[in-house]
Amino acid sequence: MTDSSSDRIAAALRARIAAATPGTRLPSTRALVAEHGASPVTVQRALRTLIAQGVIESRQGVGTFVREVRAARPHDYGWQTAALGPIEHRLPGMTAAMRTAPNDVIALHSGYPDRELLPERLVRAALTRAARSDAVVGRAPAAGLPELQSWFATELGSGTPNGVMPPAESDVVIVPGSQSGLSTLFRALVGAGRPLLIESPTYWGAILAAAQVGVQLIPVPSGPHGPDPDELDRAFAQTGARAFYAQPNFANPTGAQWSATLADRVLDTVRAHGAFLIEDDWAHDFGITAAAAPLAAREDGGHVVYVRSLTKSVSPALRVAGLIARGPARDRILADTQAHSMYVSGVLQRAALDVVTQPAWRTHLRSLRSQLASRRDLLVDALRTHAPSAHLEAVPAGGLNLWLRLPDITDLAEFARACEDRGVILAGGDAWFPAEPTGKYLRLNYSGPNPGAFPEAARVLGELIAETTS
Amino acid sequence: MTDSSSDRIAAALRARIAAATPGTRLPSTRALVAEHGASPVTVQRALRTLIAQGVIESRQGVGTFVREVRAARPHDYGWQTAALGPIEHRLPGMTAAMRTAPNDVIALHSGYPDRELLPERLVRAALTRAARSDAVVGRAPAAGLPELQSWFATELGSGTPNGVMPPAESDVVIVPGSQSGLSTLFRALVGAGRPLLIESPTYWGAILAAAQVGVQLIPVPSGPHGPDPDELDRAFAQTGARAFYAQPNFANPTGAQWSATLADRVLDTVRAHGAFLIEDDWAHDFGITAAAAPLAAREDGGHVVYVRSLTKSVSPALRVAGLIARGPARDRILADTQAHSMYVSGVLQRAALDVVTQPAWRTHLRSLRSQLASRRDLLVDALRTHAPSAHLEAVPAGGLNLWLRLPDITDLAEFARACEDRGVILAGGDAWFPAEPTGKYLRLNYSGPNPGAFPEAARVLGELIAETTS
Repeated sequence: MTDSSSDRIAAALRARIAAATPGTRLPSTRALVAEHGASPVTVQRALRTLIAQGVIESRQGVGTFVREVRAARPHDYGWQTAALGPIEHRLPGMTAAMRTAPNDVIALHSGYPDRELLPERLVRAALTRAARSDAVVGRAPAAGLPELQSWFATELGSGTPNGVMPPAESDVVIVPGSQSGLSTLFRALVGAGRPLLIESPTYWGAILAAAQVGVQLIPVPSGPHGPDPDELDRAFAQTGARAFYAQPNFANPTGAQWSATLADRVLDTVRAHGAFLIEDDWAHDFGITAAAAPLAAREDGGHVVYVRSLTKSVSPALRVAGLIARGPARDRILADTQAHSMYVSGVLQRAALDVVTQPAWRTHLRSLRSQLASRRDLLVDALRTHAPSAHLEAVPAGGLNLWLRLPDITDLAEFARACEDRGVILAGGDAWFPAEPTGKYLRLNYSGPNPGAFPEAARVLGELIAETTS
Repeated sequence: MTDSSSDRIAAALRARIAAATPGTRLPSTRALVAEHGASPVTVQRALRTLIAQGVIESRQGVGTFVREVRAARPHDYGWQTAALGPIEHRLPGMTAAMRTAPNDVIALHSGYPDRELLPERLVRAALTRAARSDAVVGRAPAAGLPELQSWFATELGSGTPNGVMPPAESDVVIVPGSQSGLSTLFRALVGAGRPLLIESPTYWGAILAAAQVGVQLIPVPSGPHGPDPDELDRAFAQTGARAFYAQPNFANPTGAQWSATLADRVLDTVRAHGAFLIEDDWAHDFGITAAAAPLAAREDGGHVVYVRSLTKSVSPALRVAGLIARGPARDRILADTQAHSMYVSGVLQRAALDVVTQPAWRTHLRSLRSQLASRRDLLVDALRTHAPSAHLEAVPAGGLNLWLRLPDITDLAEFARACEDRGVILAGGDAWFPAEPTGKYLRLNYSGPNPGAFPEAARVLGELIAETTS
C-alpha cells in the first residue's frame, strides 16, 4: 500500500531534513516536482507522509518546515522490571543440546539427528506435494487432519494386545511438536503448583516445559533399566501426585527400555494411585536391537497419555506430534492446545502424513536402524578403547545417546570447556536432572555429523579423564 | 520395522483366535507354513508377535494355545476427574468464527479470508522453493530466521518518525502464529492472577488466550473510535495493571482505527503508569481507505510490545508471526517461546519471507485492498437497503468485519439459529466481550466466500429483525 516514487521522494527529503536545523523551510511543491520529475500528487503524498511522521510541519499558506525532533539517546528500560514483577518460574537456560556447532569440530552435543539420517528426499517430495494441495489455502481442524489422527492411532493400536481396546482416531490431538505437547500435557493434566513425578535423569526439554508451566517436579530415580517401582509408589503416596512423566522406550539420556515386568508394575502403581502416566515415546523410530513397545498400547483405562513426535525422525521443519488420551483428559488437552495454537499448519500435517505412509518410509527406517547401530557401536568401541575409565552403565537398545559417567571429582563445566578447546563439543549431564545431579555425566549423541571422528573424540575424552584423575 | 508377510499371517491368526474359545490349540508351524505359503521364520515371527500381545501362549513341546482374554467393556474414566482436579481457568468455547460451514450457505461468520483473497500462487511457489532449501533438514534459530526478523523490524521501522529509534532485528522473536504469540505475551508480561486491561469488545482469541494463562481481564470500553483514554487511565489507577491489550488499527470486531491524538493520549497514559501496551496489529495488511499506522513505530521506550501475524493475509498454513519488544520484556518473551515451542519450522518461515519479499506481494496487497473495499461497500449498502433498522455505528477504514448492533430485545442465540435456518451463518457478538456484553451485536465478516450473496444475507437479516421487533 505504499507508492514507490513518493517513498523515494520522502527518503530523499528525510536525508535533507536530517541535516537541516529545525525551522528550515522546505522547497515549494513546484520546486520539488521539478527536482524529482514527479507529479504534484506524488510530491504531496511524500510530504503528507513526512508530516504524519512528525518530521516536518505545514503552516497554512506559508510553507513546509523542518520540525524540532528529539535527539537519539540511550534507552532506559529499567521501568520494565518493575512492570514485569518477579520471575515466577525461573526457566533453566537452553542446554548445550540446542547449540549450533561450527563445522570444524566433532559435535556430540546435539539432540537432533544429522541430515544424513533423515528421509530428506521423501520430505522434499512430500512438501512439494503439500504445496500443491488445498492445505495451502485452508485452516486445518483444531484436533488435526483426520487422516493423520488416524495414522497415529493405528500406529499405537498395532501394538495393542487382545482384550485391550485400541485407541480411536478421535483420541488423537495433533500439536505443533512435542515441546508444545509437553507444555499442554503438564498444564492440562497437572497445573501450576501441583506435583509431577518425573524420571531423574530425564529429557531437559520436559524439565523446561514443566518449569514454564510451574508444576512442582518430584524426581524418581531412574537408571539403565528404568525407574525403581518402589520409589515410584512411595513418591505417589508421599506427594499426592496424580501424574508421572516417563520415557519407557530408549529414555533420553539413559537409553533405558523398560522390561515387560517393570512396565506392568508401573502401570499397576499408576492405576493404584488413580494417576496418569505421561508416556513420551520420543524414540519410537530409533529402535536398534529392540523395537519400541509403548505402554499406552497395553492400557485402555485412560491412565496412559501418550506423546509421539515426528520432528526428530522425519524433519526438524515438520513440527508435528500426536497426543493420544482418552476420557476427560483428552477434552482438557484439546481445549488447551486450541487456546494456545488454534490449529497446526495443514501443510506440515499433510507433508508428515505423506512421508510416513510411503513404502519408502519403511525402507528408510530399516536403513536408519542399521546406521544407528553402526554409529552406536563405533562410539562404544572407541570409548572402551580410548576412555576405559569412563563408565558406560549400559549399551542402549535404541535411541540416540550414550550416558557416560565420569569420575566424581570431575568439574563438569571445566571438562566441557577443555573438550571444546580440543575440538569436541558435548553436553554436560547436569541439565538432565530435575533436581540435584547425582553424579558427573556426559550425554554423547551418536546421531550427529561425521561419525568417522568418534574415535578421535573418544581419544580426547580419554586424555581429559586421565588428566582429571591424575 | 514390521514385516508385511508376518503381519498378514498374524492378522489372519488373530481373526481365527477371536472366534476360538480359550485353550484351543493352534495348527502346528508346519501346517501354518503350508497354509500361508510362507517360510517357517515368517510364521514363527507372526506367532511371537501374538505371544507378545498376550493373545496366545506357547507351552514348551506341546504347542500354541489361545489365551483367555478379557471381554471388551465400556470404560469408566470417572477417576480422571478426581486426578485432574477442578478446572482452574475455564476456557470459553470456540466461537462460531472457527466453524467450518457447508458450501450451500452464506457464510459471514469466519475470521479467515476466503481463498480468492489469498496470494495463492505466491504461497505455492514459495513453499515449493522452501521444500528445496536447507530449511528442510535443519533446525531454525530459537528467535527465528534472521532475514525474517529483519523483515518484521524493517516493516515496523518504515513508519518510525524522526527522532525515534526504529526496532532492531534482534528485537524480533518469531512465533508459530499470533495465538501462540498472545499466550506468550500474556504469560511473559502479565502472568496468572495479575490484571490485564483489554478493550471491550475485542478479539475473542485474545480473550481465550488470556483465560488460558489465567490473567484477570479488566474491560476498557472501546467504540468505533477506540477506547476512552480517561477510562483507561482510571482502570490503570484502580487495578494496578501494568499492561493493556489493544488493536489500534481496524480493531476486531469494531473496525476502529485510533486517531493520532488518541494514540498519543494512550501512549502518554501507558507511560504514566509504567505499563506496556500490547499492540495486536492483526489487520496490518487489510487497510482499505487508510493504511495501518502501528503505535509501536512511534515509541522506543519499550512500552509498546507489538505482534503481527502473516497467517491471515498470506496463508492459514503459514503459521508465522513476529513479536517485537525491547529491553527485559524481549528476554522474557524469548524464554517463554523457547520453553513452549523451541523454534518455528524453518520451512514455514522461509516460505513466508519469500512471499512478502516478492514484488508481486505489493501487487497482491493493492488488489486485496480494492477487493476488500468492494466487499465492504456491497455488504454495507445491502444492509442499508434491506436491514435499515440494524445499527452500523461506523464503516471501517480497514479490517474484515462490520459490527452491527441489533435491537436490545433480540435473543442473539435464537436470532443466529433462525438466520442459519434461512441459509446465513453469522457470529453473535457475545464472544467478543471479555465480561458482560453491552448490547446485542453481530460480527459480519465480508472476506468470506461468495460476496455476490451479501444482498440475500442482508435481506434475511432485515426480515428477522423486522420479525423480532414486530
